[in-house]
Amino acid sequence: MSEIIVVDSFDYVIFGGTGDLAQRKIFPAFYHRELDGQLPTNARLIGVARSEISAEDFRSRVEQSLHAFVAKDLIDADAMARFLDRVDYQRVDAQELSGYQELAASLAAAPDRTRVFYLATAPQLFGAIAKNLSAVGLAVGQQHRLVLEKPIGKDLASSQQINDEVGQYFGETQVYRIDHYLGKESVQNLLALRFSNILFETIWSKSVIDHVQITVAESVGLGERAGYYDGAGAMRDMVQNHLLQLLCLTAMEPPQSLESDTLRDEKLKVLRALRPMSSADVQQHTVRGQYAAGSIQGEAVPGYAEELGRESGTETFVAMRAMIDNWRWADVPFYLRTGKRMQERYSEIVIQFRAVPHDVFANAAPEQRGTPPEPNRLVIRLQPDEGVRMRLMTKEPGPGGMRLRSVPLDLAFADEFDQRFPDAYERLLLDVVRGNRALFMRRDEVEAAWRWVEPILEAWQAAGDSPRAYQAGTMGPAASSNLIDREARSWHEDMPSSVMRDVGRASNVN
Amino acid sequence: MSEIIVVDSFDYVIFGGTGDLAQRKIFPAFYHRELDGQLPTNARLIGVARSEISAEDFRSRVEQSLHAFVAKDLIDADAMARFLDRVDYQRVDAQELSGYQELAASLAAAPDRTRVFYLATAPQLFGAIAKNLSAVGLAVGQQHRLVLEKPIGKDLASSQQINDEVGQYFGETQVYRIDHYLGKESVQNLLALRFSNILFETIWSKSVIDHVQITVAESVGLGERAGYYDGAGAMRDMVQNHLLQLLCLTAMEPPQSLESDTLRDEKLKVLRALRPMSSADVQQHTVRGQYAAGSIQGEAVPGYAEELGRESGTETFVAMRAMIDNWRWADVPFYLRTGKRMQERYSEIVIQFRAVPHDVFANAAPEQRGTPPEPNRLVIRLQPDEGVRMRLMTKEPGPGGMRLRSVPLDLAFADEFDQRFPDAYERLLLDVVRGNRALFMRRDEVEAAWRWVEPILEAWQAAGDSPRAYQAGTMGPAASSNLIDREARSWHEDMPSSVMRDVGRASNVN
Repeated sequence: MSEIIVVDSFDYVIFGGTGDLAQRKIFPAFYHRELDGQLPTNARLIGVARSEISAEDFRSRVEQSLHAFVAKDLIDADAMARFLDRVDYQRVDAQELSGYQELAASLAAAPDRTRVFYLATAPQLFGAIAKNLSAVGLAVGQQHRLVLEKPIGKDLASSQQINDEVGQYFGETQVYRIDHYLGKESVQNLLALRFSNILFETIWSKSVIDHVQITVAESVGLGERAGYYDGAGAMRDMVQNHLLQLLCLTAMEPPQSLESDTLRDEKLKVLRALRPMSSADVQQHTVRGQYAAGSIQGEAVPGYAEELGRESGTETFVAMRAMIDNWRWADVPFYLRTGKRMQERYSEIVIQFRAVPHDVFANAAPEQRGTPPEPNRLVIRLQPDEGVRMRLMTKEPGPGGMRLRSVPLDLAFADEFDQRFPDAYERLLLDVVRGNRALFMRRDEVEAAWRWVEPILEAWQAAGDSPRAYQAGTMGPAASSNLIDREARSWHEDMPSSVMRDVGRASNVN
Repeated sequence: MSEIIVVDSFDYVIFGGTGDLAQRKIFPAFYHRELDGQLPTNARLIGVARSEISAEDFRSRVEQSLHAFVAKDLIDADAMARFLDRVDYQRVDAQELSGYQELAASLAAAPDRTRVFYLATAPQLFGAIAKNLSAVGLAVGQQHRLVLEKPIGKDLASSQQINDEVGQYFGETQVYRIDHYLGKESVQNLLALRFSNILFETIWSKSVIDHVQITVAESVGLGERAGYYDGAGAMRDMVQNHLLQLLCLTAMEPPQSLESDTLRDEKLKVLRALRPMSSADVQQHTVRGQYAAGSIQGEAVPGYAEELGRESGTETFVAMRAMIDNWRWADVPFYLRTGKRMQERYSEIVIQFRAVPHDVFANAAPEQRGTPPEPNRLVIRLQPDEGVRMRLMTKEPGPGGMRLRSVPLDLAFADEFDQRFPDAYERLLLDVVRGNRALFMRRDEVEAAWRWVEPILEAWQAAGDSPRAYQAGTMGPAASSNLIDREARSWHEDMPSSVMRDVGRASNVN
């Protein structure tokens, strides 16, 4: 059981406070921290939106959300009362100064606290909000911190523009660009495993690793984000941020420490080492897809165009091979894959090790040797359950021969620790208060990612063809398999519904 | 569950058939193979000894032993009847030809079978038995196999003499020098782990391993073997064979295959690479001990001299540091330790990995980081329960900081396989029938071991001092700790009674 350390007192202002993210993720995350006694007595959570509602209305909306998104057995009347008591509401129109003035007046009651402004709004508003916060004296000094949700722009230029606008009022060290994938327990554990065990870091390179796969598969479709999504697509929505960030943590050199900039310097080096893709590379090593009608777990679902209400050239699926041009990773492909309406919702990083260079068991009679040695594999599962699993070969107990068997070894230690895994937001929301920026993206990282992604988007556009159709409920277009098959490898597709079950243990939550 | 493959039919002749080893280990091991249906229908087990008893008497003695040494729930009336039906008895005086003639007549009923002669007798008789077997036509050809129990001599010369005597009648490929430590599941699994997982063999060298410890601790005292033991001592009785064999399997290069001579060639290379010890080395890097009165688990026990009935200079404890002069192991100490009347009975091989070269977590505030990374450790437990356990650092689940914790990871997979681990003898007895000599010591191995051990014995004798006294129930004389402490290391002393319990799982038997 971790020791809980109460953070310094704060006022947390959530722009877009009535929105989906705030209600589904942010308030429930704070509630869990409340339950663990981590929130200082007088810390406040101030929802901000344009709605003309009372603080009382807002509190009951938050209360409803907690009942909807927190496990029943964690609903505690005392904690709930204590929590709602922190919650306040301030009506603010992002473009109008008056609301900010009222907000500033309210915050002035506690002049020395850390003040966090979480922008769970459309990115077009980031600049205006930053400007208005500054206008009412809520920008200068490390006391004031700004959390930005993706997407930060839709290409290098627009991301630079947003960052420039925000940067006029908030220094880079006050800006927290959130990527909740980095707050996940299993991703944190990847860092712990790599850097606190000599045995992992020793095998973490091209000499022992054959390739890496990063999959973020969603089963949902377009949903209610049609306006944003159709202008973005899977590359901008997922690859440019989440998948590349996971790639960075997997591939980076050991940092000198986990201090914010030290860690981010190492991630940046990876982004800058990504091999740029020519048009020919894009043709050969990327696949775009768009889902057509199909069915997911027995339920018929419409195709993308049908959901959108018109034809579209937007990709809802990307598979690609990325190469990292440095000493550690030369010739080790990183296969990335993400899509909507795929067979099952799951995200994972797969470290596929090389085969043993020589099979010393090969000479034995078949009945004496069991399966040939399978290459080792480390799977870091992010969704739907978190876990870290290593596949090893071991000897089957038995009095004759040397029969090998592949067995999964759980490094997630859910049993060992016997406690709930916190949601990524619980960590990240308070990391902002702690002033720990290690898990937030620095501006230069975001821009380096765009620099690599943009030529791919351009090559797709120049090619003038459409994304390949894939049936909803599948793992994407056939070309995605070809991408990896032709290099004599294959996608790791032990679905969570089958795999995590095979040692009878669900690591957890979310 | 392993597939059981019935072996070719055989007659197994056990010299010393009424003795302790035969009754406690050999017959129970065969019974377990009977239970699993691995013994061919008409295979025979023929006890041989000097006693004037009937086959019926012998069978009821074996039956009693099975009731005493087989788990109650595995006693099955049908299997017992089937088993006893195979058991026969032949009176033979090792030195007199007549008994051998009767034995030969009995075996002649099945002229083509594999015939195994297991010599569970004093080694002085090995030569005579081999000669007499030959005289009655039971030596020539691969059909005839001889199993020799240790000790094979008490130094190089006497071992050569015994091997020469036996070698006059049986070729080297007919001779099986048994070391039951090599038949243990966890030792077998050491081979499986090393050679079927690229991740283990990659870290298996001086660059990642700090040192190795091999401990064989007994809690028993002199017992009934006073005559033999006082003339031998711990070095001859345990180090020269068991400990050095375990060292070989741990340290050897990957063999081209597990074929008998290929594997043994690699073990031999290790024995030949052991750095010879000068008198000064012996002084500095070895410790002899002899137990004095003390208590084991609350029970008072006498000292060695008292048990023996006189003073003696024989060591009942040895601790030493061995070095292997080759590329893989240069500068990696192998600490060996064995003794009687120690605190607890347990045997294990400990692979102690190096610390991480740099602690990236060191800069974090103490409450954010948990324990500093502990070096990884792999423990291969041979007794009292078998198991393989890796100690890893992992992240404690929690929403803040990066608190590391050392957790034990069970690679024994007892749960995974959910079956009884067979006793080492079950494997080895039938490996003789299978003609698989990989786990038996070749003559040149035995002699190479003596060549390394003999100068140590001589240096001890020349020094003229006595073994250091240690209190029964302790882990040996203080000098044993000093031996390793002064190199800034320490003995791994998580006793089985405490350690294996900490994940609430006992791997098993024996």
